[in-house]
Amino acid sequence: MTKFIMHGCNGAMGQVITRLAKEDPETEIVAGIDIQDNIDNGYPVFTKIEECDVPADVIVDFSVAKAVDGVVDYAVSRKLPLVLCTTGLSEEQLAHVEAAGKQIAILRSANMSLGVNMVFKLAALGAQVLAQAGYDIEIVEKHHNQKLDAPSGTALAIADVMNEVLHKEYAYKLDRSQERAKRGKKEIGIQSVRGGNIVGEHEVFFCGPDEVVEIKHTAYSKGIFGKGAISAAAFLKDKEPGIYTMSNVIAG
Amino acid sequence: MTKFIMHGCNGAMGQVITRLAKEDPETEIVAGIDIQDNIDNGYPVFTKIEECDVPADVIVDFSVAKAVDGVVDYAVSRKLPLVLCTTGLSEEQLAHVEAAGKQIAILRSANMSLGVNMVFKLAALGAQVLAQAGYDIEIVEKHHNQKLDAPSGTALAIADVMNEVLHKEYAYKLDRSQERAKRGKKEIGIQSVRGGNIVGEHEVFFCGPDEVVEIKHTAYSKGIFGKGAISAAAFLKDKEPGIYTMSNVIAG
Amino acid sequence: MTKFIMHGCNGAMGQVITRLAKEDPETEIVAGIDIQDNIDNGYPVFTKIEECDVPADVIVDFSVAKAVDGVVDYAVSRKLPLVLCTTGLSEEQLAHVEAAGKQIAILRSANMSLGVNMVFKLAALGAQVLAQAGYDIEIVEKHHNQKLDAPSGTALAIADVMNEVLHKEYAYKLDRSQERAKRGKKEIGIQSVRGGNIVGEHEVFFCGPDEVVEIKHTAYSKGIFGKGAISAAAFLKDKEPGIYTMSNVIAG
Amino acid sequence: MTKFIMHGCNGAMGQVITRLAKEDPETEIVAGIDIQDNIDNGYPVFTKIEECDVPADVIVDFSVAKAVDGVVDYAVSRKLPLVLCTTGLSEEQLAHVEAAGKQIAILRSANMSLGVNMVFKLAALGAQVLAQAGYDIEIVEKHHNQKLDAPSGTALAIADVMNEVLHKEYAYKLDRSQERAKRGKKEIGIQSVRGGNIVGEHEVFFCGPDEVVEIKHTAYSKGIFGKGAISAAAFLKDKEPGIYTMSNVIAG
Repeated sequence: MTKFIMHGCNGAMGQVITRLAKEDPETEIVAGIDIQDNIDNGYPVFTKIEECDVPADVIVDFSVAKAVDGVVDYAVSRKLPLVLCTTGLSEEQLAHVEAAGKQIAILRSANMSLGVNMVFKLAALGAQVLAQAGYDIEIVEKHHNQKLDAPSGTALAIADVMNEVLHKEYAYKLDRSQERAKRGKKEIGIQSVRGGNIVGEHEVFFCGPDEVVEIKHTAYSKGIFGKGAISAAAFLKDKEPGIYTMSNVIAG
Repeated sequence: MTKFIMHGCNGAMGQVITRLAKEDPETEIVAGIDIQDNIDNGYPVFTKIEECDVPADVIVDFSVAKAVDGVVDYAVSRKLPLVLCTTGLSEEQLAHVEAAGKQIAILRSANMSLGVNMVFKLAALGAQVLAQAGYDIEIVEKHHNQKLDAPSGTALAIADVMNEVLHKEYAYKLDRSQERAKRGKKEIGIQSVRGGNIVGEHEVFFCGPDEVVEIKHTAYSKGIFGKGAISAAAFLKDKEPGIYTMSNVIAG
Repeated sequence: MTKFIMHGCNGAMGQVITRLAKEDPETEIVAGIDIQDNIDNGYPVFTKIEECDVPADVIVDFSVAKAVDGVVDYAVSRKLPLVLCTTGLSEEQLAHVEAAGKQIAILRSANMSLGVNMVFKLAALGAQVLAQAGYDIEIVEKHHNQKLDAPSGTALAIADVMNEVLHKEYAYKLDRSQERAKRGKKEIGIQSVRGGNIVGEHEVFFCGPDEVVEIKHTAYSKGIFGKGAISAAAFLKDKEPGIYTMSNVIAG
Repeated sequence: MTKFIMHGCNGAMGQVITRLAKEDPETEIVAGIDIQDNIDNGYPVFTKIEECDVPADVIVDFSVAKAVDGVVDYAVSRKLPLVLCTTGLSEEQLAHVEAAGKQIAILRSANMSLGVNMVFKLAALGAQVLAQAGYDIEIVEKHHNQKLDAPSGTALAIADVMNEVLHKEYAYKLDRSQERAKRGKKEIGIQSVRGGNIVGEHEVFFCGPDEVVEIKHTAYSKGIFGKGAISAAAFLKDKEPGIYTMSNVIAG
């Protein structure tokens, strides 16, 4: 059973986590902190962080960058492990987080989804064994038609994770239509599909002689980051001071 | 029950069709024609086409371009419907076929696979209804790592079939990685995956608000062209003189 | 350009349609009708249906069964084509709708999703051609872990649509684990996957010699019914009196 | 570079491995052993195993059960590591293999495919992390229409591998159509699709809140066992005496 304080409880992600925590018998939000206090969440909400003295195992943050320093100091002062989901931190803030990691356990990750982090791990394993055996690696990602960039950041992150175990010897091939040539051995092809309002799909293919191994992630909403935050809170509960990531959660 | 003569019976595709015909209770090869006569097929094989006078409903040809004139003349002389699967015909040969079509039924198609032709038809239907409703169209094709061209000819053919019903207003988008932009409305994205010895996969996606309709073809071997030839033979059996294609077979 | 009145505009589906109509340049909601008038939709909302006299091409209904008689009478009195999306109508109500169809165009369908109806049509076509050629038909459907029934109603509806063109000669095979036997020819296998909060996926496979043709529908939310309603409104605009279904919309 | 002797070189799998070895610059077959000597493989073939004294790193066996004792004794006498791919061994033969494992390295596995063994490993990892986080596990397998049993042995093996890390607390659910009930938490659903001549597909789904992680294996031919045998040979080359399996190869 993990009892945690939700920092940014009345924001979009705070509400997602509130709903998920209610459905999870192993998790309870014991208090919320938010500058808005206009929603009945079934737990006390504090508009000033320093006024919240409810006992808890962890504090989870999904707020805005300018509120992060406050929550880091608060977590240190109460010796509370901190799951820090807010992104876009400045260099100064990252240094602040780093320093706080000497006193409390802090988990921070580029992507909070449990599934996406699982795919990072599975893809790395697949690359290690199958690329060595000569299997070709390809990635296809699909997103909505309003997305500006291609390939997606997550597709590139998956490729990076694999390339890391491949000694960074692989080049990323984003377009095959401009040449007539056999596929190169040390390539990771990355293809982007755009259409409708697809939230996000990522497929990794390991193509060998007469067989293909595929690892696929499908997101149905941004709620996947909330579930990851809850898993991170359970993981971080009694951890020693230090900086952790979702890969530690995945490692079990 | 369709009884047919197999022209080119001891070539690779002739042997595939021989095997498939044996498994199909509705089909019987009553004679074969081939310059090689070194295989026991369970039916008589003639090395000279003019010597074959076995009664039949249809003649199926899977041979080489230079043998095509002979089989066309033979089919006309016997008033036999002709399934012509050999590709790479010259302009003169095509004119010869066209002229013969005044006297006998001839079926000729760029792709003999029943499944691929079905995908042509399904994709056209999907495009007609769903593109008009604002759904985005995307294609992903996958082939082995020795393939020189991208996208595949079949992927382009699927796109063409759809663009035809869309009044040729759509542009093909082969690479999204070189710009930062939202997806254009009148685009068909075509992405190519290369790896291992994948025989051929084609997926068409119609992506709308909160839903995706997908049509997919997977080939496990080149034997798919043989099955299509048999279906074509059954279709052509009692047909009036004229030039037919696999789309007529698909039309039922 | 289709201008329509939204009956039930402040309910869940009414709000989905309001949002979709704003994004669609070919569609405008010119008025709403709802017993609740607590939302600013950017169009006038009437709490009493008889007070709405805004000129329109069509009226779309997504309300509750007990409100349906009122909207049918209103549509008849104004000679407005009616898209009737509310389900659970009584025998008496269905007779009422039938009678009204003599005076105005009414569209009513078991499933308003454009994509699902497209899959009905594509699957029927696939069955007609490919089942006749001996291809085996299989369906896999996936839904969330709270769903009580298996297979899903939509999976059975897809099977029924195919079986209709197959002269109802096919039996549905829901479990293969209780016997040791080769697959029967005249079967449609239907398999159910349950997990997480999957909204709904349906795949139809046509499996032939060395190839598979697949038709797949993925739903990301129940919003798919709203998009279908808008397409239905555009279709119904100038239609003659009669009873229509989504299959007419799909037919183009 | 691995140099090996191919025992059963002129059988179906021996020929597959001969072809794969030619394409692989890291592998060379230096001699073959087979009771048939009717094929020119580009390496010397011995019809009597005891006459083969060609220097080699490993011996690979893909023969028949009754020939296994001979190859085990031969490998021991020459101190050659042995990749033993023949299945259907008797209890006595297994004991013989076990005893020989004291003197030489022997690799034996239920399934020689690298990809299938990779899926075993990935699925176990996925189960460990994601099942603990409450994700539902489902398996779908697809095979040809002549297969007698359902689910496939490989699908059950994947389920077993996952259940092992889940403390054998999960039941296998093979049919959901006979009851009206929500999905149980500690279930692994296994669904079987049968059609055409599909060689073999296995999909494992981990379904969580708003996301699905999928691991999929597609086999295009039985050649996948040959590639696995070659990888096993490279792995076994300089290994200490003992009994190994493909999971050791996967472990790297």
